[in-house]
Amino acid sequence: MGDLIGVALSGTLYYVPEEEFSRILSLPIDNIKKARLFASLCRINTLYMIARAGSGHIGSSFSSMEIMSWLQLNEVSTGHGNVFFSSKGHDAPGYYNTMIGSGKLSFDLIHELRQLGGLPGHPDIKTPGIVTNTGSLGMGISKAKGIIFSNRHFKKSSWVFVLTGDGELQEGQFWESLLSAVNDKLHELIVIIDHNKLQSDTLVSKVSDLGNLNAKLEAFGFSVFRCNGNDLEQLTSCISQSKMIMDKPKVIIADTIKGKGVSFMEHTAIDSDVELYKFHSGAPTEDIYKRAIQELINSTNSLLQAENFELLLLENVSRPAISQPDNKPKLLVQAYSNALLHQARFNSEIVALDADLVLDTGLLPFKKEFPERFIECGIAEQDMVSRAGTIALNNLLPVVHSFSCFLTTRPIEQIYNNSTEHSKIIYVGSLAGLVPAGPGHSHQSIHDVSFMSSIFNITCIEPVSERQVEEALQWAVNSENRHSSYIRLTSVPVEHNEVINDISLPIFGEGNIIQEGSNGIIFVTSPLLTVEVLKATAILLKHNLRFTVVVMPWLNSLSIEWIKPLIQNFKDVFVVENHDYANSFGTFLIYQLAKHGLAGERNFYHKAVSGIPACGKVDEVFAFHKLNGESIAEDIKSKYD
Amino acid sequence: MGDLIGVALSGTLYYVPEEEFSRILSLPIDNIKKARLFASLCRINTLYMIARAGSGHIGSSFSSMEIMSWLQLNEVSTGHGNVFFSSKGHDAPGYYNTMIGSGKLSFDLIHELRQLGGLPGHPDIKTPGIVTNTGSLGMGISKAKGIIFSNRHFKKSSWVFVLTGDGELQEGQFWESLLSAVNDKLHELIVIIDHNKLQSDTLVSKVSDLGNLNAKLEAFGFSVFRCNGNDLEQLTSCISQSKMIMDKPKVIIADTIKGKGVSFMEHTAIDSDVELYKFHSGAPTEDIYKRAIQELINSTNSLLQAENFELLLLENVSRPAISQPDNKPKLLVQAYSNALLHQARFNSEIVALDADLVLDTGLLPFKKEFPERFIECGIAEQDMVSRAGTIALNNLLPVVHSFSCFLTTRPIEQIYNNSTEHSKIIYVGSLAGLVPAGPGHSHQSIHDVSFMSSIFNITCIEPVSERQVEEALQWAVNSENRHSSYIRLTSVPVEHNEVINDISLPIFGEGNIIQEGSNGIIFVTSPLLTVEVLKATAILLKHNLRFTVVVMPWLNSLSIEWIKPLIQNFKDVFVVENHDYANSFGTFLIYQLAKHGLAGERNFYHKAVSGIPACGKVDEVFAFHKLNGESIAEDIKSKYD
Repeated sequence: MGDLIGVALSGTLYYVPEEEFSRILSLPIDNIKKARLFASLCRINTLYMIARAGSGHIGSSFSSMEIMSWLQLNEVSTGHGNVFFSSKGHDAPGYYNTMIGSGKLSFDLIHELRQLGGLPGHPDIKTPGIVTNTGSLGMGISKAKGIIFSNRHFKKSSWVFVLTGDGELQEGQFWESLLSAVNDKLHELIVIIDHNKLQSDTLVSKVSDLGNLNAKLEAFGFSVFRCNGNDLEQLTSCISQSKMIMDKPKVIIADTIKGKGVSFMEHTAIDSDVELYKFHSGAPTEDIYKRAIQELINSTNSLLQAENFELLLLENVSRPAISQPDNKPKLLVQAYSNALLHQARFNSEIVALDADLVLDTGLLPFKKEFPERFIECGIAEQDMVSRAGTIALNNLLPVVHSFSCFLTTRPIEQIYNNSTEHSKIIYVGSLAGLVPAGPGHSHQSIHDVSFMSSIFNITCIEPVSERQVEEALQWAVNSENRHSSYIRLTSVPVEHNEVINDISLPIFGEGNIIQEGSNGIIFVTSPLLTVEVLKATAILLKHNLRFTVVVMPWLNSLSIEWIKPLIQNFKDVFVVENHDYANSFGTFLIYQLAKHGLAGERNFYHKAVSGIPACGKVDEVFAFHKLNGESIAEDIKSKYD
Repeated sequence: MGDLIGVALSGTLYYVPEEEFSRILSLPIDNIKKARLFASLCRINTLYMIARAGSGHIGSSFSSMEIMSWLQLNEVSTGHGNVFFSSKGHDAPGYYNTMIGSGKLSFDLIHELRQLGGLPGHPDIKTPGIVTNTGSLGMGISKAKGIIFSNRHFKKSSWVFVLTGDGELQEGQFWESLLSAVNDKLHELIVIIDHNKLQSDTLVSKVSDLGNLNAKLEAFGFSVFRCNGNDLEQLTSCISQSKMIMDKPKVIIADTIKGKGVSFMEHTAIDSDVELYKFHSGAPTEDIYKRAIQELINSTNSLLQAENFELLLLENVSRPAISQPDNKPKLLVQAYSNALLHQARFNSEIVALDADLVLDTGLLPFKKEFPERFIECGIAEQDMVSRAGTIALNNLLPVVHSFSCFLTTRPIEQIYNNSTEHSKIIYVGSLAGLVPAGPGHSHQSIHDVSFMSSIFNITCIEPVSERQVEEALQWAVNSENRHSSYIRLTSVPVEHNEVINDISLPIFGEGNIIQEGSNGIIFVTSPLLTVEVLKATAILLKHNLRFTVVVMPWLNSLSIEWIKPLIQNFKDVFVVENHDYANSFGTFLIYQLAKHGLAGERNFYHKAVSGIPACGKVDEVFAFHKLNGESIAEDIKSKYD
C-alpha cells in the first residue's frame, strides 16, 4: 500500500470531460458495450487523477474497472437501495471515476484526489455515495453484514456488493466474517474478489499463496462463481446467476489482470516484471504517462470506431509540480534498511518478519542477504506477531515490520500476549505520524505511541536522524537490553537540516538540546516537526523571542535527573509532536513533570493532532493541523503578545 | 470464559496422591491402557483442583483429558524436543494435572490453582514446562509456526502438537495462520481440535456454526484426520498416521464429549441441558462434587479391577472456604443487564451484539425479549465491531459486548475505523480491571482505558454503583449525545457500602465527593477500589489524618471549572485506580491539571497497577499490587510521617 511520494513531475495531462461521459452514456448500444466504453473512459481519468495527485493505486483501479463500471451503471443506480463498496479501498481512484463519470459526484473532483478537502486516498463517508470507510484490509464482509442486518431490520430487500482484493484474503477477519454470512443465509450478499494475483509487494502466490480459493470458499458454504473479471459478458452472467441463489451468500472470483488496459502495465505482459510489479502504487513518470495515455486513447477510439461513433474529445492541462523537500532529503527508512543489514551481519539471532511491505519497510536488502532469516507473513499481522512471540522464546531476536497504523493496532492483543512472556521483540513501524497524508486516516498513524506505550516493557523510540536510526536499532538489539522496543519511523523524506543532520541518540530518557534560548523551552518529537519547530523559532527570533529546543527520541522514558536542572530555567514549556493529543509523549512528559514536583507554576502548551487526521499533501496537512512552522510560531508568539 | 466466583463452599475434597501416580505409571500394561488410567486419575485431581480453587474450567479439561494424557506420557517425554501446548488455554487445570501426574511439575501445585504464586488460571511460561502464554483464543497455530521456524533454524526436528478448541475456530487468526503452515509445508505441525461441540455459552452450532469442518481444513491444504478423541485407540492411530505425512501440516479433528467422565456433566447425556451447559467454567457445589467424585472413583476402580490391580488410594482434605463480600454485594453486570432491557423497551434503535459471552455480559434477558435485535457473533470480535460500524451508519444504535480484555484490544483497529465514521456506538466491557484475577493476565483488563481513550470521540465511563450503571447507559444512549461510549464494568461483586450504594452519575467531567477531609484529596476510579479507599481512610482517621475522597466515573473527561475550586484547598493529591499506570485516568488527570496551571506546588501520588497483573484471589491480588485498603493507608500515611 505504499506510495512513491514527492517525485517532481511535469508534462501535459489529459482527461475525458463531463460532456463526453454524457455522450457515451446516451449512445444507442447495449449495457455491456456501454460499460466497456465507460470503463475505458474511467481508466483515462483514473490515470489523470493519480498523475495529477502524485500518488495513488493504478494497478488495482485498472484491474477492477469493468467490475466497478458495471456495478455503478447497472446495479446501484436502480433506486432499489443496492449498495456497493470496495473493501480493499486502495482502488479508490477507479471507484471515484466511475462515480464521477456516472454523475454521482461533482465532476470537478477529478482534479482533487488526495488534496485537502478533496477526495481522500482511501474512501471516506464524507464523500457523497461512499458507503463506509475502508483502507485497512479484511473488514468488508463484516461491514456488509451490518448493512444487511439493518436492511432486514427495516424490511428493505437490496443487494449488497462488496469488492475485495486477493491479497486481502490473507487477513483473518475475512475468514472470520464468512461463518455467520452463511449461517444467517445472507443471500443479499454478493462478494466479488478482484483476483488480480498481485498484492503490494509481488505475486500473492509468492507472498502467501491462497491455494485452492474455490475450494476454500465453497467449504465455507458460499455459492462460488468464477469468471474473467475484465470480460463483461462473463462477469454479468455470473452476477445474474448469483442472484438466483436464494439461500446462501455468493462470491464471484473475478480473475483480472493488474494494470489492465495498458499493455506494459498488465502483469501478464511478456516483459512484465511481476517480481517487482511497478504499478501497484505511485504516480507515473512523464514518459510512462505518455505511453499509457496514448494506449488508453487508442483503445477507446477503437471501441468507438467499431460502432461508427465519433472519436473521443479530451481536455488537457499541465501537470502540477509536486513539492518536495530541498536537496539531500533524509530517508530514514533507507537508513533503517542499512542499519538492520549491518546488525544482522554481526548478530545471527536476528530474524526479520514482514507483512507484505518489504519495499516500504526497507527489508529488501535483508531478504536478499539473509533469506533464511526472513519471514514473509503476508497481510496477516496477528499471525506475524504471534509467530514472533515464540521465535523470541526460542533464542532468536525477531524484528517485526509493518506500517505503524497496522502494526500497533490489528495485533495489539498479540503484542500484549508477547509482553507477558517477557521476551524481547523489536517492532518497527514505518509510515508513522500524520504524513504522508495522501492515503488518508486508515494509513495515518497518530495513535501508535498511545497503544505501544500502554504495553508493559516496550520502549518507544522515534529517531530524527539517520544516525539516530542506527543507534536506536543498536540500542534495541544490544543484548544487555532486555526490553522490547518500538521504533517509530517517518517515511516521508526529511528536509536536510544541518542542526539535526548527524544528531546522535541521547542517553536513555534524555533529549538532544539543539538550540538554546531563554524565553521558553520546546520539546519536540519527530524529524519532520523538528524541522518545523526550527522554522518556527527562526520566525520567533525576528520578534526577539529565543527558545531552547530539545529533540526527544525516547517517547515513554524520561530521566528526571536530566530534565530537572534543564527546565528549572523556564516558565514556559512547549511540547510539539506528530501524534494525537491523547496518551502521547506530551501527556507522558507533562504528567511526569507534575508527578515529580517539577510542574510548579510553569505554563504547559501542548501542540499535537486533534480529531481525525486530514488527508492531503504534507505541507497542507501540517498547516491544517497547525503543526507547520508558521502556525507553531504564531501560536507561541500569541503567548507573549 | 467466565467463572462463577466467590461462591462459599464446604465439604471434603479428594485427590490422588503422588504415590498412586507412580504406581499406575509402573503397572505392567500397554501404553494405551496406561494413558486411560492416567486420564482417570487426572480427572479426579482436576476436579479437586477446581473445587479447591473455587473456579476453573471442568468441561474442556475433561473433554481433552485423553488427548493431553497421551501426549504428555508418550509424545513430549521422549527427549526428542517435541512440544505440546494448548491454544485455548482454559483447559489448564487438565493440562497441569497431566504434567503433575507425570512428574514434570511439583506435586504440591495441585493445591495451588489460581493462587498467588501458584498455577495461573491460564498457562504462563513462569510455570516450568509451559511452552507459551495462552488464554486469548486463536493464537496457537501462529505460535506453533514460530516454534517450528526456530527448530528448523537450529536444525532440530521435533513434532509440535497444538490443541485448540472448536469455538476458538471462530477467531479469524486461526484461519489466518493456516495459509503459511501449508505453503511452508510444516509437516512438524500436528493440530488437534478438541471438538467438544460446546463453547462458553452453548453449542458451537448455535453460536456460530462451523459448518463442514473437514472440508474447510482440507480446502486450506491440511491433511485432515478425524476420530473419537476420548477413544485412545482411535486417537493414537490418527497420530501415528498423521506422522507419516511428510509434505503437509496435519489436523486431527477429535470429536470429544464436554465434561467427559462424569455422566451428568457430559453434554451428550440424555438430561443434559446443552442450551445452558453448566460445566464450562466455575467450581462444583458440594452436592455436585460428591456425585462427580464418586463416579470418577468408581470408574477408575473399575479399570483397575478389570486388570486385577489394587484399588485407588485417595487423600482427602476439607474444602477451604472461599471468601466473599459481606452481605448484599452489588452485581454491576446484573444492573447493566436490567438497564439495557429498560433502555431497549423505550428505544427501538438499540441492537445488542455479543461475542459468545451472553451470560457474562448480562445479555440473556435482552436476547430473550428482543431476539430480532440481538446478534450473536461468536468468538469473532473484529467481525462484531465492523458489523456494529455499518449498523450504526444505518440508523440503529449498536451496543457491543465482550470482556474488556478482548473488546478493547483484538478489534481496536476496527474501533478506530468506526470512529472515523463519526457514528455512535456503545462499547460495553465487563470483567474490567485487575480482578477477578484467577483467570490470569489474558483476562485481566488493565490497559482498556489506555486503548479506548486513545480513540477519537469515545467517552470512557466506569460506574461504581448500580444507579451509575443505569445513568451511564442512559447518558450513552441519549440521542442528544453524539459521542461513542465505552462503559467499563466490574464483574466481581462489590461489597455493600452505604456511601456509594446509591450514588448517582455526576455531571459530565465531574466526580462524586463522598467524603471530606483536609489533609489531602483522593481521586478514585472503580467501585472495588472506592471501597478499598474508604477502608484506607478509616485507618488513616485513627492516625488523625482526614481525606476528601472523590469518585471519578468519567475516565477521559474533566471539567476544569469544577475541579479548580475543589483542589485549591489541597497540597496533596492522590489518584487510585484499577488500571495500569500508563495512559490511565491518573495520567490524564495529572496532565490536565498541569496543563491548566493547577499543578502548582502540589504533590501528586498515583497508585495503579505496575507490570504484569498477578493471578490469584481478589484480596491477595489487590494486596500484591498494593491496592487494598491497608496498603493504600500505609502508603498515604508514609507521606505524613
